[in-house]
Amino acid sequence: MEFAEYFPVWQKLTPRQQERVARGLVYRTVPKGARLYDGSMDCLGLLVLRSGRLRVYILSEDGREITLYRLFARDICLLSASCVMNSLQFDVTIEAEADTELWLIPAGLYKPLMEESAPLANYTNEVMAARFTDVMWLVEQIMWKSLDKRLAAFLAEECALEHTTRLHTTHETIGNHLGSPREVVTRMLRYFQSEGWVKLSRGTVEVLDEERLRALGET
Amino acid sequence: MEFAEYFPVWQKLTPRQQERVARGLVYRTVPKGARLYDGSMDCLGLLVLRSGRLRVYILSEDGREITLYRLFARDICLLSASCVMNSLQFDVTIEAEADTELWLIPAGLYKPLMEESAPLANYTNEVMAARFTDVMWLVEQIMWKSLDKRLAAFLAEECALEHTTRLHTTHETIGNHLGSPREVVTRMLRYFQSEGWVKLSRGTVEVLDEERLRALGET
Repeated sequence: MEFAEYFPVWQKLTPRQQERVARGLVYRTVPKGARLYDGSMDCLGLLVLRSGRLRVYILSEDGREITLYRLFARDICLLSASCVMNSLQFDVTIEAEADTELWLIPAGLYKPLMEESAPLANYTNEVMAARFTDVMWLVEQIMWKSLDKRLAAFLAEECALEHTTRLHTTHETIGNHLGSPREVVTRMLRYFQSEGWVKLSRGTVEVLDEERLRALGET
Repeated sequence: MEFAEYFPVWQKLTPRQQERVARGLVYRTVPKGARLYDGSMDCLGLLVLRSGRLRVYILSEDGREITLYRLFARDICLLSASCVMNSLQFDVTIEAEADTELWLIPAGLYKPLMEESAPLANYTNEVMAARFTDVMWLVEQIMWKSLDKRLAAFLAEECALEHTTRLHTTHETIGNHLGSPREVVTRMLRYFQSEGWVKLSRGTVEVLDEERLRALGET
């Protein structure tokens, strides 16, 4: 069963527990741009990514966004199953940034299984600790790092993810990732352009000096 | 045993596990101002607060701080036991803001116990989820809320915690809580003073209109 390779704790479940998971598992393909989950939906369950990319972000009342982290193949999405833990009380939105294939372990199946299985509960702990660490990294970025460095790091990361230096994105989208107003992003991008690191045109940011941006992002 | 009342999962441990905890448990009193834990120390273990108050915060390389959350009687401190989970990879500093009494469950005792006990692992999950939720609340505050509202909320909370409207604190300490430079805090406090909400003197912020600050902090 292919799923077993993507779910490291599989071998520590009893045969009966494995059977329950196998029976309840839902395979899904999600097109790029689709919203899988938001605070208004019923609790979904755990997502195990086979391929693709998900973005997990928070949304303010007035529509501003900030990206918490992204998930890739073999990553586990826990915040889509927040009902599994009573104390997990914040809402995130999850959308596919690329065509994505995934397995869903429904919350109603996962919760009782986690309550009886120490290995599964410990595994869930590790997944949550990893996400918590991602968010703490973000807090440190926001608090200690100026926007130029965060923007540089973001552009370098996008080039790596998209395998191109020609990024089709708007200043607004970038602002949503970084939690900054569009105007502030535009101003900083123009500064980057004046330094010769990027070239701006409508709907596109062309990265001319990826190494320089990466270096700036890492300072 | 008094500890059992402070550790809700106690009843779900086996008698043998209870005995192991009881034997390994360390009772400590920590004076106000003492630093219990920082990133450079060995992993301590789980702290269970009997009384007092701990502040958990992060520290930047250049010495800036921001408070993540505070812990009170009956709270459990998990981040002092980060070695218990491999994926928990960020450093916090923990200090006593008041004289504090606590029990310490050493990491070397807690980790194997959590690995074998599903109830304990699930309980640990809930504790981590609660702290994760605290930090997400902080992210939202930082991202969406302007400093005037955060400062107002902070002053109102301090009055409630200290049972006084006369706060003995410096602008620098307030800045450390909020992750803002001292000068920015001073400017905002002077604005609050001009509105008649506080009165500033050396080493003291006297809150004149606690209700108004609370209301502003909640918008």
